[in-house]
Amino acid sequence: MNREFKDTWAIILGGSSGLGLATAHKLAAHGMNICIVHRDRKRALPELENELRCIEATGVKVLTYNKDGLLAETMAEVISSLPKHRVKVLVHSIAKGSLKPMNKNNGDTLSKTDLDITLHAMGTSWYLWTNALIEANVFTENARNIAFTSEGNSKVWSGYAAVSAAKATLEALMRAMAVELAPLGIRTNCIQAGATRTTSFDMIPGSEQLAEMAKKRNPFQKLTQPEDVANAVYLLCRDEADWINGTVLKADGGESLR
Amino acid sequence: MNREFKDTWAIILGGSSGLGLATAHKLAAHGMNICIVHRDRKRALPELENELRCIEATGVKVLTYNKDGLLAETMAEVISSLPKHRVKVLVHSIAKGSLKPMNKNNGDTLSKTDLDITLHAMGTSWYLWTNALIEANVFTENARNIAFTSEGNSKVWSGYAAVSAAKATLEALMRAMAVELAPLGIRTNCIQAGATRTTSFDMIPGSEQLAEMAKKRNPFQKLTQPEDVANAVYLLCRDEADWINGTVLKADGGESLR
Amino acid sequence: MNREFKDTWAIILGGSSGLGLATAHKLAAHGMNICIVHRDRKRALPELENELRCIEATGVKVLTYNKDGLLAETMAEVISSLPKHRVKVLVHSIAKGSLKPMNKNNGDTLSKTDLDITLHAMGTSWYLWTNALIEANVFTENARNIAFTSEGNSKVWSGYAAVSAAKATLEALMRAMAVELAPLGIRTNCIQAGATRTTSFDMIPGSEQLAEMAKKRNPFQKLTQPEDVANAVYLLCRDEADWINGTVLKADGGESLR
Amino acid sequence: MNREFKDTWAIILGGSSGLGLATAHKLAAHGMNICIVHRDRKRALPELENELRCIEATGVKVLTYNKDGLLAETMAEVISSLPKHRVKVLVHSIAKGSLKPMNKNNGDTLSKTDLDITLHAMGTSWYLWTNALIEANVFTENARNIAFTSEGNSKVWSGYAAVSAAKATLEALMRAMAVELAPLGIRTNCIQAGATRTTSFDMIPGSEQLAEMAKKRNPFQKLTQPEDVANAVYLLCRDEADWINGTVLKADGGESLR
Repeated sequence: MNREFKDTWAIILGGSSGLGLATAHKLAAHGMNICIVHRDRKRALPELENELRCIEATGVKVLTYNKDGLLAETMAEVISSLPKHRVKVLVHSIAKGSLKPMNKNNGDTLSKTDLDITLHAMGTSWYLWTNALIEANVFTENARNIAFTSEGNSKVWSGYAAVSAAKATLEALMRAMAVELAPLGIRTNCIQAGATRTTSFDMIPGSEQLAEMAKKRNPFQKLTQPEDVANAVYLLCRDEADWINGTVLKADGGESLR
Repeated sequence: MNREFKDTWAIILGGSSGLGLATAHKLAAHGMNICIVHRDRKRALPELENELRCIEATGVKVLTYNKDGLLAETMAEVISSLPKHRVKVLVHSIAKGSLKPMNKNNGDTLSKTDLDITLHAMGTSWYLWTNALIEANVFTENARNIAFTSEGNSKVWSGYAAVSAAKATLEALMRAMAVELAPLGIRTNCIQAGATRTTSFDMIPGSEQLAEMAKKRNPFQKLTQPEDVANAVYLLCRDEADWINGTVLKADGGESLR
Repeated sequence: MNREFKDTWAIILGGSSGLGLATAHKLAAHGMNICIVHRDRKRALPELENELRCIEATGVKVLTYNKDGLLAETMAEVISSLPKHRVKVLVHSIAKGSLKPMNKNNGDTLSKTDLDITLHAMGTSWYLWTNALIEANVFTENARNIAFTSEGNSKVWSGYAAVSAAKATLEALMRAMAVELAPLGIRTNCIQAGATRTTSFDMIPGSEQLAEMAKKRNPFQKLTQPEDVANAVYLLCRDEADWINGTVLKADGGESLR
Repeated sequence: MNREFKDTWAIILGGSSGLGLATAHKLAAHGMNICIVHRDRKRALPELENELRCIEATGVKVLTYNKDGLLAETMAEVISSLPKHRVKVLVHSIAKGSLKPMNKNNGDTLSKTDLDITLHAMGTSWYLWTNALIEANVFTENARNIAFTSEGNSKVWSGYAAVSAAKATLEALMRAMAVELAPLGIRTNCIQAGATRTTSFDMIPGSEQLAEMAKKRNPFQKLTQPEDVANAVYLLCRDEADWINGTVLKADGGESLR
């Protein structure tokens, strides 16, 4: 087994399903210890338990926190449990946003609270976590900071206004962190995943149709799999990616091209 | 005198100086009544008073509210004072944001509150105003919805992380409103102004140097004037701009090209 | 009648139909003399004759050249017939490109000659005309230089590879001219039109379906009309557009947003 | 030694120096055979000979052609010497372009010939090579197609107009190939390198100053090294990059962000 990331940690926010969970599997397969922060109901836990056992079977350590990762106290608790200078990568995969319309003819419209919650969960919380990790000296010398974005960063989809704004915020913060945190050795990037049938994707209004369209648009005539995105995270963690900083890496098979 | 916009109103948020005030002058010169929402200290009022008299001298009506435009109660008060179906254009020119760094070596870093305030003031408040105006039926049939953005939407400037995120949010909301509010006849666009020596520009750290650089970069070797941007607002208000919707119109002389 | 552009000329390359012809009508309505360079078969001429008579009826002068505008000799002939310092705007609306595929399974593939012809006709010829006009001192002091682009600049459409490359070239040259020719007072911009049922659009494979999709995508549920684009040209010619330089102005109703 | 790419070939156009040569070294280190097409004077050959011996020392095969890679006959000769279904990656690193200005006050301006040569060498030749390789059945089943671009794709630099247009063409063709050639299993991408002190960079007017500026702008306060870019090529060749198609991957340390 390849153990290239031995003795380092990944913190995966939203790591119990979808892109986050696939990332946990991939990084563990290359020797990284995994710390997952997630929010799940009891009935989802047995399945997750199985996944975690698979991950542990690779020989890495696994920590999980079934707590609200958006709270400062969760941040503090998680961070205090990790050794200094051992976090190789922070992966932000939190999906929690309002899908309300802007036009009242289409239903109850987005409120200030809806926007605030979405911008925080899917946008600014990435920076707040990063900042707390820096403050606690847990990042390795040449760390990675990665968040997931989508084509909705610049495209308009029905009911996606708040999430689109959050993705735009996420990417703006990515650029700023890429510049401001480079002196600390942190490489900050976003990965733009194609349409993936995750739990959060399925909550977008008309997701079934979106998935159908995505498949048709995709040059490879298939949807993005969580593993495709996890692979991109892995590539960005390798030493060869040391010079990749401040960019949006698309892992969508070319879906967004037409 | 050209009175092409007779009997319509412009609501200008942040209309007491800079781009907002220049816009007030330009639109009034073409017959539009002006409603300015601003936030100024007493000592700034005599100068503003002069400007307002100039505007009134063109024969249009002028309303001003020296109140916090970010409060729901201000919105309600302003909107209730305007006639139904007469607001031709909403112009968002609010500049209120945190200029803190992300890297603690450069000082006190951006907090959640800093980000929340900035994203609201310079981002989501635009949509909230728009929504309130729609709810109150004050927009004309073929209205304009315009906000000011800057090259900082995609470029990283020192201390500009929060504002950059807010500009990115503003533009994402612009795209969503352009699609979702088109059925109501509203055309939504942003204008990307070049570096302009406004009060808010001068508060950016190193603004003097930024202005010097901007002048040198600009193909015309000069800075953007508030009037240049007001001219772009005027163009977007004309009937010939009916098909311009959902775009970022640069009014920067080409400054952002190199 | 509004004669704001009295005594100035527009040169419209590809001005006998579609966007070019609509532009001729609009600028003539504001007093500009019109010089059209076009390439038409005999049977198309009677209809064009009618259009030209309409334009002349506004009181402006009209010159037409039914010649290959891509030849240096046509350039020389056209330019020599125009007075010095009177060309307010050059409009490039030439559509002549290969629509072959890249994948041999889809038919005869793009050759070097196909690419060369398309890049010249829809790309570099714009700069070559501009350069010749400068050399001959026919531009006014504060001139406009405008070319039409499309969403195909960045989107992949079937059979559109060569034209897409030409649009990308056109926009790159636009940016370079905006900077390099600013000292001569020339403002250079592109207008990105939405899908318009012009003769050249109808030659794109599957254009019927593209038009149907465009209509559905468009926030206003209708296609772009040539007049919509002509209106944008007019706006860019006004004095208020003096500070708009080096940008792509979309006139598509928001069609490209989703 | 890692031999992950055993029995496959890389064709590197412009592989005798700079980014191309660094790529040859990196891919050879992972077991790929190397075919270099280059254009060098006699006096440069001894140094190249040393480099090639280093590459061969890794145990891979090396073929070199000191011929004009832009000629169809060179293409035919090179391709005929390679085994069927063994070319894992085509790397386009040809730099040959005109650096003339557009404004006659700055010297002899760009001619049609200058533009044609540049667009061919740095743009369309990539597609023509790709097409010839497909025709000859030399690509592996899951091949890579990579070209180098630069920030000059969208930024205006003095004397860079023709090259900028070529880079824009290159990227448009990249997007089209990514879609049209996906059914053949080919993944097509560009890598946007930061400013690198290569021979061709040093020929840009004011390159010394550009390099100084780039270093200052770069978040890591250093220039891009050819090895940084070669690393990105390597990442794109790995299996984990199977889903990366049709994108511009920046390998610039974040230099283009401000």
